[in-house]
Amino acid sequence: MAPQRIAVIGGVAAGPAAAAQAKRTDPDADVVLFEQGEFISYGACEMPYYIADEYQDAGTLLVLTPEEFEKTRHATVRLRHQVLAIHPKRDRIDIKDVTTGVVREERFDKIILAVGARPRMPEIEGVEALNIFPLRRLDDAIAIKAFLENHPVQHAVVMGGGYIGVEMAESLRERGVRVTILEPFGGLLNKYLDPEMQPFVHEEVAAHGVHIRKEKAEQVEQDADGLVRAVKTDKGEKIGCQLVIVAMGLVPNTDLAKAAGIHIGETGALAVDDQMRTNLPSVWACGDCVEVERVIDRKQVYLPLSPVAYRSGHVAGQNAARRGRGTAARFPGVCMASAVQVFGLEVAAVGLRLEEARKAGFDAVAVQIKGWSRVKIYPGSKPIHIRYVVERKSGRLLGAELIGQEGAALRADVLVPCIREGWTVDAIKDLDLIYAPPLAPSIDPLLRAAHAATKKVGRKG
Amino acid sequence: MAPQRIAVIGGVAAGPAAAAQAKRTDPDADVVLFEQGEFISYGACEMPYYIADEYQDAGTLLVLTPEEFEKTRHATVRLRHQVLAIHPKRDRIDIKDVTTGVVREERFDKIILAVGARPRMPEIEGVEALNIFPLRRLDDAIAIKAFLENHPVQHAVVMGGGYIGVEMAESLRERGVRVTILEPFGGLLNKYLDPEMQPFVHEEVAAHGVHIRKEKAEQVEQDADGLVRAVKTDKGEKIGCQLVIVAMGLVPNTDLAKAAGIHIGETGALAVDDQMRTNLPSVWACGDCVEVERVIDRKQVYLPLSPVAYRSGHVAGQNAARRGRGTAARFPGVCMASAVQVFGLEVAAVGLRLEEARKAGFDAVAVQIKGWSRVKIYPGSKPIHIRYVVERKSGRLLGAELIGQEGAALRADVLVPCIREGWTVDAIKDLDLIYAPPLAPSIDPLLRAAHAATKKVGRKG
Repeated sequence: MAPQRIAVIGGVAAGPAAAAQAKRTDPDADVVLFEQGEFISYGACEMPYYIADEYQDAGTLLVLTPEEFEKTRHATVRLRHQVLAIHPKRDRIDIKDVTTGVVREERFDKIILAVGARPRMPEIEGVEALNIFPLRRLDDAIAIKAFLENHPVQHAVVMGGGYIGVEMAESLRERGVRVTILEPFGGLLNKYLDPEMQPFVHEEVAAHGVHIRKEKAEQVEQDADGLVRAVKTDKGEKIGCQLVIVAMGLVPNTDLAKAAGIHIGETGALAVDDQMRTNLPSVWACGDCVEVERVIDRKQVYLPLSPVAYRSGHVAGQNAARRGRGTAARFPGVCMASAVQVFGLEVAAVGLRLEEARKAGFDAVAVQIKGWSRVKIYPGSKPIHIRYVVERKSGRLLGAELIGQEGAALRADVLVPCIREGWTVDAIKDLDLIYAPPLAPSIDPLLRAAHAATKKVGRKG
Repeated sequence: MAPQRIAVIGGVAAGPAAAAQAKRTDPDADVVLFEQGEFISYGACEMPYYIADEYQDAGTLLVLTPEEFEKTRHATVRLRHQVLAIHPKRDRIDIKDVTTGVVREERFDKIILAVGARPRMPEIEGVEALNIFPLRRLDDAIAIKAFLENHPVQHAVVMGGGYIGVEMAESLRERGVRVTILEPFGGLLNKYLDPEMQPFVHEEVAAHGVHIRKEKAEQVEQDADGLVRAVKTDKGEKIGCQLVIVAMGLVPNTDLAKAAGIHIGETGALAVDDQMRTNLPSVWACGDCVEVERVIDRKQVYLPLSPVAYRSGHVAGQNAARRGRGTAARFPGVCMASAVQVFGLEVAAVGLRLEEARKAGFDAVAVQIKGWSRVKIYPGSKPIHIRYVVERKSGRLLGAELIGQEGAALRADVLVPCIREGWTVDAIKDLDLIYAPPLAPSIDPLLRAAHAATKKVGRKG
């Protein structure tokens, strides 16, 4: 067989994972990774810490330089190349060299789309100001940090109170900047936490001098240099500021795929099966441009998180390259496990919030407890708040939210296999977790919460 | 029906759990808890920290005082009462009031044995010396601390390098005492760690000034006051010391049960089914005197750990009291999860060591990796060493050992449901664990180890 040619479009996380795995699967293949920007393979989630100056050099965030990637992964990297169109019937793509502006057509047997997502920007007057930044690509992070180093920023407005918004608030506080978060749709981290858990986060954030307003930006006021000098909100407030960070979520990039006839799912992202196949026989997709299956109810969801990108990229790369040999790799769906550190607090969530569970059709109840990270009276023991969302009829754990200063995030991990296996809270309460006074109490807070939940829904099975 | 009378024999952990649950299950029952010592319901695992003076008052270790227990659990407590004999056919027990010496016979419908275990003592000359202490009961802890406070102890010998031995070495070091551990049977924690993992523990312990000798005590040299002044070993060493702690493991207390005709299992502990029933129809047993089922291979094992005691006590109490109503409670077996903090290190183990797995008949292999607790380059990230023991044919995870400064113990917990479900390392490597740079790396060390193990045994299923 002639060596196959595989094009991977997009170079941040899913793309490099797909290219590397494709080459591993078929070492004879000619694998080319196209990236329209300057960088590939970087830790996008570490950008807030780079801005906070915990990493001084942006190079630290590169997992691999393009040269290292080519050398170790044996795939070709083409930086500053933008794919303009896919012609699946002719196995061709149109590629623009961004530097020269030249557009060429090239033949590939297989195409892997890892085109990611773009930041949702507010559609308001003045948003084009030079000191309004999303935080999506490494260029954004470099620009924000450079701006902070070259301009006297006393006060910044962060639009959006999700993970990135909260992390950026912390980074800016570490640089001595006053911060206001605008979150019009509910409390902080409202995509991950029920309203009953949000106060713990609000308290911590407010204690670190961040103002939180349940308001929406309506207009941006610029000075003569085209720089923001104030944000006006829907409640008529005018907040003076010298920097605006936009952290209002992501929109999957689907134009290229749509034009080629690739199906879009209900979430608005590309529809793929568990082998990361699109509806076109020679096109796979992965990362922040696709939707994935939520294991709890097998519903398709849009979950643009880095581990999902890596894993789906791996699956797409293997399946695109395998030419029918071996077994197909399968993406195992998602439990929706995620975590963020908010100043001194660990906040983690897995599965469904109560409202989400009810929206998905479950007759669900919630139970919330306060436990301790170690034996309660052991020096250094910290409170940990746990909320379980449980299906009333079956007793099955549908979701959990954990907030604490020690071990909240890793405790969420314990629930991931339990949710994957459809365990009841009654089964979870009997888990023989470790116990040692300096490390965890005799009845771990995970088990205490399961006891409380079992009491609420009754023992099952 | 006339109210039933239930005797619970033994008051440390399993007994109080059984008594409380019996009373919860049948509020009309007359439940009596017999304890031959002065205390019930205390945190035995916290005793080393009391000796280190992290808790100043022994009272802190009491979960409930006898008065509190009676008031909140509605069972009767009889301290300083020793049960001498059980007459199952006549539903009678012989009870000695230790204070007065008076022995009486009393009728009970049901008996729950929670008689625990005693420390294994070395059978050597001089072992009766006044400053040789086991650490088993709260009286022992109080005696050790009092001795330390009233005598100039420069050097102590700890016999045994298991959990208690290592914890006591740390407690003594915190009090400024020089320490030598005698562990003749292998490295420290050799019941939990394969030889390949032990050096990390040895290094940490030695770095804190503890001497470790692969030697056995053969003789104790006393002074005129009946106090140890040196320990002589099988290698002819003579170690001067002013205190000896014996931490050589436990022997289940079975004499009372044996005399009543209750069966002993292969491990030497009482044989019970998963409802904690003995072979006698009106006698249940729980805690450190029974053997339990290891879920990995359904073999009976002796595992005298506090969470096992609580859980088995709960099951015994419920089943003894339920009079055929409701469903029987079942003990779910053990994964053998345990952990200890060794100075700055967390050490955790779950399931089987390689040698143990092979002894149990598995064709097993081991894989060992070094990972990082957070994103590697994130400030404060700490190394974590993980070893997986895997069945070669099936790829099933049989056991894991984890050592690190941050999150080793809680990561062991993640593997507990996986082992209970019989997951392969191939399935574990696909777990969507949380990721946030300050909390855990994008590919958690648990997943890296699973990747390495999958590579070694090949993909299964």
